[in-house]
Amino acid sequence: MKVSEYAVGCPERAVLEHVTSTWGVLVLIELSTGTLRFSELRRQIGGVSEKMLTQTLRVLERDGFVARLAHPVIPPRVDYSLTPLGADAAVHVRALADWTTAHVSEVTRAQSAYDAAYDAAAV
Amino acid sequence: MKVSEYAVGCPERAVLEHVTSTWGVLVLIELSTGTLRFSELRRQIGGVSEKMLTQTLRVLERDGFVARLAHPVIPPRVDYSLTPLGADAAVHVRALADWTTAHVSEVTRAQSAYDAAYDAAAV
Repeated sequence: MKVSEYAVGCPERAVLEHVTSTWGVLVLIELSTGTLRFSELRRQIGGVSEKMLTQTLRVLERDGFVARLAHPVIPPRVDYSLTPLGADAAVHVRALADWTTAHVSEVTRAQSAYDAAYDAAAV
Repeated sequence: MKVSEYAVGCPERAVLEHVTSTWGVLVLIELSTGTLRFSELRRQIGGVSEKMLTQTLRVLERDGFVARLAHPVIPPRVDYSLTPLGADAAVHVRALADWTTAHVSEVTRAQSAYDAAYDAAAV
């Protein structure tokens, strides 16, 4: 049997986890539309704590996907944008997200059918 | 400011989370190579508990991405495969994963540079 390319401990698996993490996906999607301040990004994504967004941005910055620009002003202002590498990754994340949006009604129908079959079996 | 397509509570966001979940991604990738038994799938993915894999497969089955076929034999045998919808989703997950594999050395270099800058700043 072949060994997976994404075996435990391989860097490929770790990077794949970063770009497919719950908040990583949404950061890449939102920043693919342009530079955003931390607070703007947080509002755009919705439902993410400051702490989780900070952690997610740090991971993506370390991976070379996100550029962080701190302006020496008061109050502090920090802009986040995608690097060329991050923009490239975001193209594929966006393609997957667009596919999801296009097929969400099929998924919703499948969910209803599954739940109906489960309910019928439970009677 | 535009509202995200992936706002909290939207079905698009939930489905996107399923196909980008840690184990969801790896299930879609491994099943895109063909039908697998539960134990084979678990071994191929690596590092996933029986419970987590069972939960992940149930979510993907409910979404209509994965088909589950239980053979009435002793010992029980259950095969998992992608539905046409799941195979379609897997194409995009696979494209993102392939991109990751192709660019992992760039990411590793970025990580080293980030860590070096961080260490220098800490001195």
